[in-house]
Amino acid sequence: MKRYVFDFEEGSAEDRALLGGKGAGLAEMSRIGLPVPPGFTITTEACNAYQKEGRFPDGMMDEVWEHLKTLENKLGKRLGDPENPLLVSVRSGAPISMPGMMDTVLNLGLNAATAEGLARLTGDRRFALDSYRRFIQMFGNVVMHMEHRRFEEILAEVKAEEGVRHDPELTPPALSRVIERYRRLVREETGRDFPDDPRTQLEMAIQAVFDSWKNPRAVVYRRINKISEDLGTAVNVQSMVFGNMGETSATGVLFTRNPNTGERGIYGEYLTNAQGEDVVAGIRTPRPIAEMAREMPETHRRLEEVSELLERHYRDMQDIEFTVERGTLYLLQTRAGKRTARAAVKIAVDMVEEGIIDRKTAILRQDPEQVARLLYRQVDPDAQVEVLAQGLPASPGAASGRVVFDADEAERRGQAGEKVILVRPETTPDDIHGIVVAQGVLTSRGGMTSHAAIVARGMGKPAVTGCEAIVIDLERQQFAAGSLVVCRDEIITIDGASGRVMRGEVPTIEPELSPEFERLLAWADEFKRLGVEANADTPEDAARAREFGAAGVGLCRTEHMFMAQERLPVMQEMILAETVESRREALARLLPMQESDFYGILKAMDGYPVTIRLLDPPLHEFLPDVQETEQALQRAQAEGNREAEQEYARILRRSRALAEFNPMLGFRGVRLGMVYPEIYEMQARAIFQAQARLLAEGMHPVVEVMIPLVGTEAELERMAELVATVNAQVAQEQGRELPYKIGTMIEIPRAALIAGKLARTAQFFSFGTNDLTQTTFGFSRDDAEGKFLPTYLAQKVLPENPFIELDREGVGRLIRIAVEDGRESRGNLKVGICGEHGGNPASIEFCHQSGLDYVSCSPYRVPIARLAAAQAALRTA
Amino acid sequence: MKRYVFDFEEGSAEDRALLGGKGAGLAEMSRIGLPVPPGFTITTEACNAYQKEGRFPDGMMDEVWEHLKTLENKLGKRLGDPENPLLVSVRSGAPISMPGMMDTVLNLGLNAATAEGLARLTGDRRFALDSYRRFIQMFGNVVMHMEHRRFEEILAEVKAEEGVRHDPELTPPALSRVIERYRRLVREETGRDFPDDPRTQLEMAIQAVFDSWKNPRAVVYRRINKISEDLGTAVNVQSMVFGNMGETSATGVLFTRNPNTGERGIYGEYLTNAQGEDVVAGIRTPRPIAEMAREMPETHRRLEEVSELLERHYRDMQDIEFTVERGTLYLLQTRAGKRTARAAVKIAVDMVEEGIIDRKTAILRQDPEQVARLLYRQVDPDAQVEVLAQGLPASPGAASGRVVFDADEAERRGQAGEKVILVRPETTPDDIHGIVVAQGVLTSRGGMTSHAAIVARGMGKPAVTGCEAIVIDLERQQFAAGSLVVCRDEIITIDGASGRVMRGEVPTIEPELSPEFERLLAWADEFKRLGVEANADTPEDAARAREFGAAGVGLCRTEHMFMAQERLPVMQEMILAETVESRREALARLLPMQESDFYGILKAMDGYPVTIRLLDPPLHEFLPDVQETEQALQRAQAEGNREAEQEYARILRRSRALAEFNPMLGFRGVRLGMVYPEIYEMQARAIFQAQARLLAEGMHPVVEVMIPLVGTEAELERMAELVATVNAQVAQEQGRELPYKIGTMIEIPRAALIAGKLARTAQFFSFGTNDLTQTTFGFSRDDAEGKFLPTYLAQKVLPENPFIELDREGVGRLIRIAVEDGRESRGNLKVGICGEHGGNPASIEFCHQSGLDYVSCSPYRVPIARLAAAQAALRTA
Repeated sequence: MKRYVFDFEEGSAEDRALLGGKGAGLAEMSRIGLPVPPGFTITTEACNAYQKEGRFPDGMMDEVWEHLKTLENKLGKRLGDPENPLLVSVRSGAPISMPGMMDTVLNLGLNAATAEGLARLTGDRRFALDSYRRFIQMFGNVVMHMEHRRFEEILAEVKAEEGVRHDPELTPPALSRVIERYRRLVREETGRDFPDDPRTQLEMAIQAVFDSWKNPRAVVYRRINKISEDLGTAVNVQSMVFGNMGETSATGVLFTRNPNTGERGIYGEYLTNAQGEDVVAGIRTPRPIAEMAREMPETHRRLEEVSELLERHYRDMQDIEFTVERGTLYLLQTRAGKRTARAAVKIAVDMVEEGIIDRKTAILRQDPEQVARLLYRQVDPDAQVEVLAQGLPASPGAASGRVVFDADEAERRGQAGEKVILVRPETTPDDIHGIVVAQGVLTSRGGMTSHAAIVARGMGKPAVTGCEAIVIDLERQQFAAGSLVVCRDEIITIDGASGRVMRGEVPTIEPELSPEFERLLAWADEFKRLGVEANADTPEDAARAREFGAAGVGLCRTEHMFMAQERLPVMQEMILAETVESRREALARLLPMQESDFYGILKAMDGYPVTIRLLDPPLHEFLPDVQETEQALQRAQAEGNREAEQEYARILRRSRALAEFNPMLGFRGVRLGMVYPEIYEMQARAIFQAQARLLAEGMHPVVEVMIPLVGTEAELERMAELVATVNAQVAQEQGRELPYKIGTMIEIPRAALIAGKLARTAQFFSFGTNDLTQTTFGFSRDDAEGKFLPTYLAQKVLPENPFIELDREGVGRLIRIAVEDGRESRGNLKVGICGEHGGNPASIEFCHQSGLDYVSCSPYRVPIARLAAAQAALRTA
Repeated sequence: MKRYVFDFEEGSAEDRALLGGKGAGLAEMSRIGLPVPPGFTITTEACNAYQKEGRFPDGMMDEVWEHLKTLENKLGKRLGDPENPLLVSVRSGAPISMPGMMDTVLNLGLNAATAEGLARLTGDRRFALDSYRRFIQMFGNVVMHMEHRRFEEILAEVKAEEGVRHDPELTPPALSRVIERYRRLVREETGRDFPDDPRTQLEMAIQAVFDSWKNPRAVVYRRINKISEDLGTAVNVQSMVFGNMGETSATGVLFTRNPNTGERGIYGEYLTNAQGEDVVAGIRTPRPIAEMAREMPETHRRLEEVSELLERHYRDMQDIEFTVERGTLYLLQTRAGKRTARAAVKIAVDMVEEGIIDRKTAILRQDPEQVARLLYRQVDPDAQVEVLAQGLPASPGAASGRVVFDADEAERRGQAGEKVILVRPETTPDDIHGIVVAQGVLTSRGGMTSHAAIVARGMGKPAVTGCEAIVIDLERQQFAAGSLVVCRDEIITIDGASGRVMRGEVPTIEPELSPEFERLLAWADEFKRLGVEANADTPEDAARAREFGAAGVGLCRTEHMFMAQERLPVMQEMILAETVESRREALARLLPMQESDFYGILKAMDGYPVTIRLLDPPLHEFLPDVQETEQALQRAQAEGNREAEQEYARILRRSRALAEFNPMLGFRGVRLGMVYPEIYEMQARAIFQAQARLLAEGMHPVVEVMIPLVGTEAELERMAELVATVNAQVAQEQGRELPYKIGTMIEIPRAALIAGKLARTAQFFSFGTNDLTQTTFGFSRDDAEGKFLPTYLAQKVLPENPFIELDREGVGRLIRIAVEDGRESRGNLKVGICGEHGGNPASIEFCHQSGLDYVSCSPYRVPIARLAAAQAALRTA
């Protein structure tokens, strides 16, 4: 016959499904001989049978009474015995932790008689009556579904009558009055007496815990966290121990290592002569566990022993609840302790050295997203902050500085060494020089892919964008956030990880790449199969990426190079050119600038591949704002400045001709190269000239040329031909071979669908999953994130933001199609990803599973990617 | 050993690959005993061997001389015999016709001596010398690569010396001088004498024809038309006959039936005593073939006989070139005759009745795109037109009317019976009432999917959009096209099939659905497997679609319903609502309007399915133009009108909040339904109430509710649930079952990629291939068509405009994935297409092959779709 009840000693950690997490933990501790107050567990199977039948399964309560008897015998106490009463706790414990979702009853077994017995035994009548009072309240609320508030009202009444303020000040007679009134309340509210029979109490409490599996907040919690309804909860019946039985009693919590820093040694706090609740109530201040070494040396030593035992047993840092009852240590709970990213890394690495875990486990135990925080300056979590507004978390990191509304001013003051935050409605290429020197950027418009966001992320600079809660008044040089006004020169702090804008200078925490972290990453590199490269547009970025361990540049965008202050006018000239000849003239002036960019990046990545993407964004992004130009034109007309008037009119004409309904789906990428091949010719020439210079200097540049936004075979073929022609020319001029690879971004669905054909020409693919996500979903990120995407995420229409975590079902299917067809057509096709997903752990796992060769991400995310790649390899193996 | 030369009698129509099209045709005619001037063909294999080796293959010229001897014996003439000279033509003839791409030499065999012989034989010295003169010129140009112009200069010189204007006026002595100078020119230019030996002439001419296979224009032609380089050309050597040997000689061309009307009876023209060139020269006017019945009755009778023979032989109407030499009829060429759409239909149907072809052939022989023209009013192709400007061919059909710049004025004058063309920079929902009564619409901005284009196509009204060549001055009520100005009230004609804007009232041709066409369509319905439905948004459209044979409405868009003048304000109120309650109030007022729309459409389509798509476009499309509102706001402020000011400010706020960077990828479709479910609830209620009314009246409404722009399973599930809930409510209120189907558009790639999951909820799919093409390619149609798409089409980067002909490789692959996965998940899933491709014949073929159940297109294209669906079935079978 099926058993429904097991003593703690009968189970182990393996029995989580049957005994629940807490039950299995108590069983495991009991099994290995740790001092756990004895008890038993009613299985999840009993719960499921109860849910199904609406009543306890046959024989279950008989088993409960049997195990109760064993327990009574073990302790020499008896449930309901006024002389030596056994008190128990009744707690839920599901196989998957659902903190705070279900119910608990403590001190079960009390009634008038046993309370007196307890008073006698402890010599503390106040304690005994207070325990009884608490039990009625908890039982009334949890089991009899009465409102907590009603009991609190009575308590407040009596305190008022007694003229005291705190619960512990109530005398035993006063507590007796409370108990009396509680019992009357129960009768009035429920129409029945409070059950005095401890066995009835136990039966009712078990049923209440089973019932709590179906309470609305638990059901919602399971739906959100995708926990099966069929798991059920176990019920743990455990003998009570008391930390408040005098000065040799205590209660406390500890971590087996410091959860903030990871340092070795137990860490925690305790209170003598107290119960767990007293710590929460905040009446007395707990003392650091270190003091226990003096006060209760034996217990402290025992805790150290137990900690080491538990760590070695569970192979992880533990979070332990304990009670000391008259000098005897009891463990009430142990579980893996929560810890900061810094501690997580240090603990894992230390444990490898201590032989507790192996390297694989050390790697698998990290949460890459949490670790990522180590690489950015953060707002001190302990700091008091005044949040002015909330925008989009566009580029992580925290920064403080004086508010400046103008890029020129930002540049001037920034170069003079002042810390400034550039605040703009939105930024344009004209603002780049200001962003470069600012500590961070704040905009009121634009999404996660706005100019400010992209530029800031590229520079690894904090940015908050699309902060619509602030209203910027450029004329008055101030912005309003609600009723508050922040003026030029005031100091603010922005947190690009959370999107918060705060008043004043908020303390921040320095990022660090600790020695432990370095070691962990070195281990990760041994296990990972995926290559990790970085997206870098400047020699500085490339050098930083190398420091973080990037094995190449997977995406070098060439457009930001044209946005520098001295280059933009030449770029604009090129765009405004009305003939091929004048366009070529402007391009000729851009050529040496591009060449020196490529020279620097290839040099910084010497020996590693650098994938250079030819010009991608629509040309109108390089032109001045239309409205501003219109105003300039009107001023010129008013002033009668004919020359300026003509110039502005020319710019306006071109801007309007280039304006688009849907720029995302417009005249950009390879489409530019097809219509203006001279642009790509210049870029190819700059690349190969830089390559030739480096080769002449004895360096080892590895060049990969990437064509963006390809959707047809002919586009790639023609551009590959163009690049090959320029390569041959430069090779002849320079008198040396200039080897390179040609490849394409896969960033529109059609490219993935015809990947087999593209791979005839392409030697590598790089998935541009930002755009691929936009086109596959038909989502404009800038629009979606401000409009319907929040609703979709809140309602779980989408499980994750697909711009952050790669959508496996849709976008992922296209990627798999492209990888398969591409490799079928060209066996040694190199395949990678260079969208923002390249730095997202879940997406990296997908890349690993889909057989990609490498991921490329922001330099700051390279360590995360290395870790995630190793985890993916270990998990898949 | 391989043979390279065949007499005409030796081949047949089957030998096209070996003998070329012309050679096979001459062989076939010879074979069936028609009077063809004898000759022989040198094979394409010889050409290919020549291309490969750079010289004639061994033995080829020996064969030529042998076949020449046979030819000489047959005719009793000899090449180069001054007494009775044989003259031949040497013509190219590839397996696939490449009109005008390669070379021809006529009158080969002439030199001083044979020319004299020809003069004697014909008794016409002028003719003989002129033939000789022409031969030198043609041979010099084609074989010796001299410039035509140099010969023309000499001819002009001599005419000047003689004081005559036309070639035929030159006397024999003058022609002798021309010949003398021609020969001198050849010597000077090429450094060698003109070859007098006819055998040398023949050998050189054959080589020249072979060489012409590789001439640049032929190479380009083949590349563009995807004709293989390996086909090669054959060479036809044919004895010359002369239609200019006196009054019993003649030359002419005829069609075996009237190529304009399709009427029975030979149709064409001829000239007595003339050569083909004389017809072209336009010196004499050819006479209708009917007159030949009087003048040359025997020949006329013979031509009728031959025509019937050829028609029965080739089973098609023929275009015949003939020459009568001294009473003897010779056929020089026969081929399928080009014909108008009207003639094509009539001829095919007549030929079925005459037992010449079967019904399948009659159907397969139609070009659906050509037939489509029968359904729209066209500009008379014979009319003289003054084209003012060229825009996009947004909605086919031709219309004339007075220029009007304002929708209100258009409505007023149109209702008064005047014909007007509405000319606007672009149209908005505010202009609908003007479009309804206008003959057509002309806009200077906006593409093929602009408001004007979509609305006009829906109404079957001609429209030219994006006509950037015109500059509209609304203030002066005029527009400029280059230097021309067209004022209000002037008459213009627009041709929405070509995009032309013309001055004045241009004659147009009425559309017709002739009895023959009706018969052809009835036959088509027997063969087609695909259902053909129509896109219809109004009861009128639905009724028209039924007339054209639509078996249902495959797409009923609900947004245009809100654009009617009296409804738009309510719609705007709904959009401007700031609470769910006020939104519901406005919706409640829209409900009866929607109900009456659905009532009318379901009634018009009684018994056939009507697929109603819930609201799709972004809400800002219903709001007034932002700039206009800004101006209105400024006016209100200036006037101190506080109330108006507040109202305009409110509209502006909402417009700005709804504004998007990429509206195509923005807040529309099901995303609206998810965020504002009350809108879809109202629409569902309107649908089911209309259904209930019709059922109560004994009608048979077949309701299909379609959710647009779905990309995730959850979207469809929730909206399906919402519709089901409303259905249950209305069913209960009405006391009857209201059966319906629920389905979704597949119009973004992700929907296709997760089709298997969507089909768990969807009972039908409808591919919205307009949007699917945009997202799969990453093309915004409005932007692409004005920017890079023309370049792509010109350069053949894309073989076809993917918005017109469905892209099989990319979009098509998604469709196949969706059909396969969808059907796997739900066996009886109904699948159709409702993008514009649903009316495109090539796309319809793809739909047939991909196993779709139906296509849906504009009512006016329903007949085309029926025809194309039948063709697809017949071709695939």
